[in-house]
Order: sequence, then C-alpha cells, then structure tokens
Amino acid sequence: MTREVFERLLEEKQYKAIKSIFDTMNPVDIANLLPEFEEKQMVLLFRLIPKESAAMVFTYLDAEQDQVLVEAFTDSELKNIMDDMFIDDTVDIIEEMPANVVEKMLLAAGDKRNAINIILNYPEDTAGSLMTIEYISLHPAMTIGDALKKIKSKGEYSVTVNTCYVIEKHKLLGTVSAMDLLTCDDDELITDVMDDNPITVTTGTDKEEVAQLFNKYDVLTIPVLDKEQCIVGIVTVDDAIDVIQEEAEEDFQKMAAIAPNDKPYLKTSVWDLWKVRIPWLLLLMLSATFTGIIISSFEDALSKVVILTAYIPMLMGTGGNSGSQASVTVIRGLSLGEVEAKDVLKVMWKEVRVSILCGVSLAIACFAKMMLIDRMLLHTDGVDQLVALVVALTLCATVICAKIIGCVLPIVAKILKLDPAVMASPFITTIVDAVSLLVYFGVAQSMIPALG
Amino acid sequence: MTREVFERLLEEKQYKAIKSIFDTMNPVDIANLLPEFEEKQMVLLFRLIPKESAAMVFTYLDAEQDQVLVEAFTDSELKNIMDDMFIDDTVDIIEEMPANVVEKMLLAAGDKRNAINIILNYPEDTAGSLMTIEYISLHPAMTIGDALKKIKSKGEYSVTVNTCYVIEKHKLLGTVSAMDLLTCDDDELITDVMDDNPITVTTGTDKEEVAQLFNKYDVLTIPVLDKEQCIVGIVTVDDAIDVIQEEAEEDFQKMAAIAPNDKPYLKTSVWDLWKVRIPWLLLLMLSATFTGIIISSFEDALSKVVILTAYIPMLMGTGGNSGSQASVTVIRGLSLGEVEAKDVLKVMWKEVRVSILCGVSLAIACFAKMMLIDRMLLHTDGVDQLVALVVALTLCATVICAKIIGCVLPIVAKILKLDPAVMASPFITTIVDAVSLLVYFGVAQSMIPALG
Repeated sequence: MTREVFERLLEEKQYKAIKSIFDTMNPVDIANLLPEFEEKQMVLLFRLIPKESAAMVFTYLDAEQDQVLVEAFTDSELKNIMDDMFIDDTVDIIEEMPANVVEKMLLAAGDKRNAINIILNYPEDTAGSLMTIEYISLHPAMTIGDALKKIKSKGEYSVTVNTCYVIEKHKLLGTVSAMDLLTCDDDELITDVMDDNPITVTTGTDKEEVAQLFNKYDVLTIPVLDKEQCIVGIVTVDDAIDVIQEEAEEDFQKMAAIAPNDKPYLKTSVWDLWKVRIPWLLLLMLSATFTGIIISSFEDALSKVVILTAYIPMLMGTGGNSGSQASVTVIRGLSLGEVEAKDVLKVMWKEVRVSILCGVSLAIACFAKMMLIDRMLLHTDGVDQLVALVVALTLCATVICAKIIGCVLPIVAKILKLDPAVMASPFITTIVDAVSLLVYFGVAQSMIPALG
Repeated sequence: MTREVFERLLEEKQYKAIKSIFDTMNPVDIANLLPEFEEKQMVLLFRLIPKESAAMVFTYLDAEQDQVLVEAFTDSELKNIMDDMFIDDTVDIIEEMPANVVEKMLLAAGDKRNAINIILNYPEDTAGSLMTIEYISLHPAMTIGDALKKIKSKGEYSVTVNTCYVIEKHKLLGTVSAMDLLTCDDDELITDVMDDNPITVTTGTDKEEVAQLFNKYDVLTIPVLDKEQCIVGIVTVDDAIDVIQEEAEEDFQKMAAIAPNDKPYLKTSVWDLWKVRIPWLLLLMLSATFTGIIISSFEDALSKVVILTAYIPMLMGTGGNSGSQASVTVIRGLSLGEVEAKDVLKVMWKEVRVSILCGVSLAIACFAKMMLIDRMLLHTDGVDQLVALVVALTLCATVICAKIIGCVLPIVAKILKLDPAVMASPFITTIVDAVSLLVYFGVAQSMIPALG
C-alpha cells in the first residue's frame, strides 16, 4: 500500500476503508508507513489501526513518532496501548523519550510500573535491560495436564509459550517446550520431561555475550537469573538478532572512522552525517602532522634521491592494508568471542609468522616488479637494483610491523576495557604510516651511499 | 568439563562415567569438545553420547570431524543418526562432504533421500537451500482439538510446533501459533484463529533477504513457497541468525581486503591466513604503480618545492578515510536493504552535500593548522600562505572526489550484479590516492609561480 492511496482515503474521509486495509496489513508495515505522514494525519491514522495491532505498531515506530503519539493520546488511549505492550518493548521506548513523556507513560503503566522501573535500572548493555518478565512459570509438582490448564488461562499475557519455566521458590529448575507440552501425555510430570540444564545468563551479562549464546545454542529464549540464582526475566531471540545487527553496524562504523549512529542512511540528514564523519577525519588529518614532520626532516635525502618519493604511497598503502587485515580479523574474533585477551601471545606468534610470509612474498614481488616494470618497461629515472632493494626491504619490514601493531592494539584495548574496534584501520594506518616512513628513510640512509 | 578430565576417564576406561557426564552436557558443548581429541578417541567418545543428543552433536561438529565419523560409522549407526537429523541440517553437512562420503550418507538416508536431493538442487544462496520440510501441516476444516490430536502424534518429527501451517491442496492458507493452540478453545476452527497473511518467501529468494525479513518482522519461521505458490518448506530463525552473522563477517573481510574465509581465527593455519591475505595485498601493491608513475612524472616540481612532498601522506590518508566513510555506509545500507540501486542519484546528491561540508571544514582546519603549527610553531621550511592554500584546496577537492567515488562504486557494483563490498575501502583508497595526487600537482602547478 502506498502513501498516496492512504492520502486519498484520508481526504475523502473513508475511515472505514482505511481500517479494513490496516486489518490485512502486518503491524511492522503499518509502522513503516506512518512516518511518511505529517503529525496530525499520523495520529488520525494511528487511531484507525485495529486494537489488536495498535500496541505492536506503537512498538515498531521510531521514537520521534511515539513521542508525538503519546503527547496526542488521551489518558485512556495511552493506558490501552501500555496494557497491550510487553515490558521489554515498553522499556525500549521509555529509554528514548524525554522526561515529560516518560512521566506520562509511567502514570499510565498501572501495575506494570514497578517492573518497568526495575528493568530501567539495569545498565544499558546488560541482559537485565533486554529482558521481559511476561513468561509462563510452572510448578514442579504439575503434570502436563495441569500445565496446559494454566497456560490456557494465562498464556496470552506472556510474551511466548514456546518455552515455559519450571520454578520453585523463585529458583529455575528447568524448561518445558511447547513441543513437550503438545506431544507428551497429560498425566506425565513436567519434571520428567523438562530440560533440567538450560542455558542461562545473569542480569549483568553483557548483551553481546547474550546474543552470542543465542547464536551458539540455537535457542529461542534465555532465562535471566539474579545473583541469588533466582529467575527474574527472559530474553527473546528477536532482541538477540537486534543486538547482533547493531553491534556489527557499530563495528563497521568504527572501522570506517565514523562516530556511532543508528539511523538508516537515507533518513539521516546531511548535517547529521557531517557530524558523525568530521571528528575522526579532523583527528586523523591532524595526526598526519607526524608523517609530515618525518618527511620534512628527511627532505635533504629525498631531494638527493628523488625517486624514493615515488614509492611512499605504495609503502604506506600496503602497510595500512596489512595492518587492517590483522586488526579487523582480531577485532571480529574478539567480538564473536573466538579470541580472548589471554590469547595475546598466541595471536602475536601467529601474526608474526603470517607477516613474515606476507612480507617476504610481497618484497620479492615488489623487487621483481620494480626491476621489470619500472626499470625495464617504463625506464623510470633512478630505479636501480639498490633502490629496488631498499624499497623491497622496507616493504617487508613495514608489513611485519603493521601486522603486529594491527593485532596487538585491539587486544590491548580489550585489556584496558576499551572497545577494540576503536583501534580499527584508520587509527592503525596512521601509526603504520609513521613507522613505515621511519623504516624507509632508515634503510635508505644506511644502504644508499649518496645519503650516508 | 575440560579435555584432561575426559582423557583420564578414557585411559581408565570409565565409559559409564563419560556417558553420564555427556548426559548433563549441552550437545553444542560436546561438539566443541570433540575436535580436541585425535580421531580414534573422538569416534570412541562419540559412541558414548546418549542417543537423544548424538544427532545434535553430529549437526554441530565441523565438516572435518563429521567426515571422520561417517567413515568410521557402521551402516546402522549412520542410519540412526540420519533418522534423527532434520533435513536442513543434513543438507548443510552433505554440502561440505567429499563425493564418497555423500554417497554413503545418501544410501543411509532411506526415505529422506528424495527430499535431501531436492534441497541440494537449490542454489546455495537461496531460501530453498536453507529450508527444511519437517513442519506440521493442518487442514482448514480442523478444529483446535483436531489440530492438537494431530500434533500429539506427529509433532516430534517436525522441527518446530511453535508455528503450524494451514494448508489445502498444497496452498498455504495461514499459520497457527503454539500460543493459539494452547490458549484457544478446542472446538474453535483453526481458520478462525489463524494468521491469514503470514510473511512468506519463494525458493529463489536470496538468503540475505530472508534473514532481513526475520529481523524486520520478528518471526521465528518463514514458509517457503514455489512458483505455483505451493508451500515446499520452512526456514527457521537459527538459520537466519547464521546468515546475518556470516554476511557481516564476509563484509568485514572484504572491507579489510581479505579473501572469504569462515574458519575461526585461532583454528586457521598460518598458511591459510597467508592464502586469504596475500592476493589483495599483491594486487593493491601492484596497483600502487599508478601513484608511483604520477609522482615520478612530477619529480621536477617536487624537487623545486620539496615541502609539497611532506603533505602527500596527509592528503592521501584523509582522502582514503573520507572515501571509506562513504563506501562503508553505502555498502551496509545496501546489505541491510536500506539503500537500493535506484537510489543512486539520491545518495550522490546527499554525499555531494556532505562532502562539501566535510571538505570545506577540513580545508579551513588544515590551512589554520599549517599556518599556526607548521609555520609559526615548528618553523617548517617552505611553508607559506601559498603552499598552505594549495594543500587546503587540494584537501577540499580530494574529500569531495573521494566521497563521490566512495558512494558511487558500491552502487555501480550492485547494478552490475557484483558484490558491493568488493568496492570497499582498500579498492577505493587506491583510486582516491591517484586522484588526490593528480589534483595536488594540478593545483600546485597552476598556483605556485615557481612551477608554472
């Protein structure tokens, strides 16, 4: 359904028609449609959404639209929406609202208010902040039949019945799946069919770690325990997917020297794009002062053997690429939990060997290329065996340094509890640039007699 | 449980103890443990896994171990495992096996063989290759009570009961969730409670697109239809998470100029790391010949105004960073479906404006920095207003070119049906390097009288 259709129906006041179109639409698609209308029309359209979809649409809208809606809602409208929303979704929305809107929402929250406040209090990057409390709890003395009866009366208030939790005195004893409930006999005890060793996390578990557990164990929900091992909520797989996606995007942005920004590209204004891009560009431009100083101080050497200048871009480029290969590999390994801080020596030893292999093969290729292409084919002034040797040796040393810097810095960041991805390509490239120039001029001065 | 514990138990032939430890372990953890043993021990250990976990462990093992096991299995052992595995997992494993192992597995597949062959025939990147056929199908004439009876007898053979499919003459009419089944009354018709507008894909839908649908609509399964709109299978959310993760890792590798490689870092040999890293390094090193040629041909100018050399790294670095900011943003936008090929003009217009903002602000900062730091503070030889102006103007032009190249190339790749991520930073940087040098020398020759 395109925007134009709805605009015409709105103009003609065909509200019934709009209602019946909404009736056939997925709430996610309605939520994607509404932001295309101006505020007044948007509020009007929202009121035409069938009751059973309204809370879902509200959940999927952007913070901007939610704020407009909350401000327009009557108290009872807001209460109806809040009643139909799950706690984890409510908390997600509240976290992005200004204070006055939060107040209005909490007033309308009724008996959910306490639960909302508790979850709001968990730090943003933890399992506690992701969880919801609407799950089915079963008592260990129940039979499958008892469980089915309880679910029939309480099921629709819970976020899922696909996994139910067997709980005694707040302690989690095990989980029962909908598959168990639907295929086992009514008189079987739930303790006989339950999985008594489920994957769990605690409220403080980092959300990236939670997401990786979903990925590793292919589960649909993970129960969250507190310090006393009592169950306090569950995290659902859709939140895990969001975390995996967000973290990957954040890493991409850091590797491209972009400040964090979670808006879709086409919806981001030019000013906002400028704001997330300019800080790193400025910083990296200023830090290039060092490479400038290094080159200036070797000005004499460069003016004597001018051809050396021609290979600076190649040396810095190859160094930068080698470094980012190592850093990106290690950063993603750390993100996915495949590499840990304690592996630093193992990683270095591996990178040293890889870098020697890469360095030597590149140096050979570079020497051959300079002698065959630059000297024999292009007759470039000043390229001789000695210059080719200087460039090739520098290349080899640069690649080795670059790879070691590239693998060590992210791990150091991790140990210092910084984000390893901040150490990504642009940052490492700047360091590698300086190193490769120093190596270059050092090798050149010691090997070329004219510079001695 | 550490490897040492099991080694001791194996030595002491305490097989019963091993069995009971396995009984409490998650199959995923057993699968992570086995590769640490040599082949014979691994096969022995595998035979001690309780029957209900064995197929799961087999599913989660790497191809290497699976091959060893299949070769060691008797026909009946293999048949038991194959009977307990779901079709989608079986296909995943078969796809990585050598021909003789595939043959042995297909022979043991019994009546699943046809289904396996059908799925094997779908192209690797499509929904068809991800799907499985073990789902619960319900007839539209059924009541909830009828459905519950059918699930009780057939449920355990299906990969999930969380969503069941209402099908008539192979056409999908709607879906019924476990929530519906467990909370509605037995005499309600399933057609009255079903969702008659579920999200679907076709066998040929790209797997990335399938994964994004899971993310967008927060569903746990998506039914797969053929060209005649008949249901042929379902895709489950765990496969979607794998796809999201794999695609992100592939993009990371391409952006870091690494050839595709899906092994965890610490498990990849030094030679294999060399093999995935050296091709791009070689290619990019050789392509730097162009920057070399450009610099050589301006050798005269550089030897007259030597200070110009000192700013080459800064200009190329800032250009490279600006270009990769734009390219990474567009590449991820394309991957996530936020940007499409038809948006090319919209994207260019946005990047032109962002690049002018970035270019002008960087140029001002650069001019100020050269006059204040390089000239007044460091007293660098040769830095004067004219040189600073040349560098600042070049910087502005370079940033604008870099951003336009950075945003256009991935979209061009997409239009040519290539992977946009191949156009990532290293590739674009090489082009931007050449462009920035040409602009630099062009501006310098037209503005500095000594070079005229």
